[in-house]
Amino acid sequence: MPTPEAMTAVVHAYVEAFARGDAAMVAALFADDASVEDPVGTPPRRGKAAIAEFYRASMATGAKLTLDSPVRAAADHAAFAFHVDLDWDGVRQRIDVIDLFRFDAVGKITEMRAFFGPANMGKA
Amino acid sequence: MPTPEAMTAVVHAYVEAFARGDAAMVAALFADDASVEDPVGTPPRRGKAAIAEFYRASMATGAKLTLDSPVRAAADHAAFAFHVDLDWDGVRQRIDVIDLFRFDAVGKITEMRAFFGPANMGKA
Repeated sequence: MPTPEAMTAVVHAYVEAFARGDAAMVAALFADDASVEDPVGTPPRRGKAAIAEFYRASMATGAKLTLDSPVRAAADHAAFAFHVDLDWDGVRQRIDVIDLFRFDAVGKITEMRAFFGPANMGKA
Repeated sequence: MPTPEAMTAVVHAYVEAFARGDAAMVAALFADDASVEDPVGTPPRRGKAAIAEFYRASMATGAKLTLDSPVRAAADHAAFAFHVDLDWDGVRQRIDVIDLFRFDAVGKITEMRAFFGPANMGKA
């Protein structure tokens, strides 16, 4: 099981990858057979190619992530609250999200779930 | 599936129950066969009696909850970041936590998971 420090470092790398607009950097944080359910309630993307494509599309909106509070690390999970700033049809938007990462033994993300809904989205 | 507003109201009732020190009020938010994994990585408590006893013990520390940011509602889940203030052997402590609630069709919590670890605990 990865240490809390290692899992927290992955979360910070994830945020940094959005700052750089680097989808490959995000994809490299995931295990080959990982799944991404974003938002929760939608069909998960599975495998690295689908995940990289998903993040390329996300980053095309100029989405930037800002952590709201410290990363929580419990057993093989990290959970973190953040907000996303992005442009949607020329309108600046803000989304409040909590992400949950599950890790494998070598510190790669095997499962990502993003918790947010319409009530968490609005003009910035 | 409960509405985002209904799930968010349950989270606020949960916080309020801690403010009152009312374990029965918390237990009433759960379905009869619910599970509580707090923190994630420990054996879940199952069923209302075990859950009520767990919250009685939690509240005996004087634990109070303060939300850090808006409740996130996605499909049948609510996720929320908060901190706990409590007394531990006479020392004031703070714990940063993210809780995840899953709901049934009538708006009762069927699964609760609390994400935090040693790195999230410290003197207040």
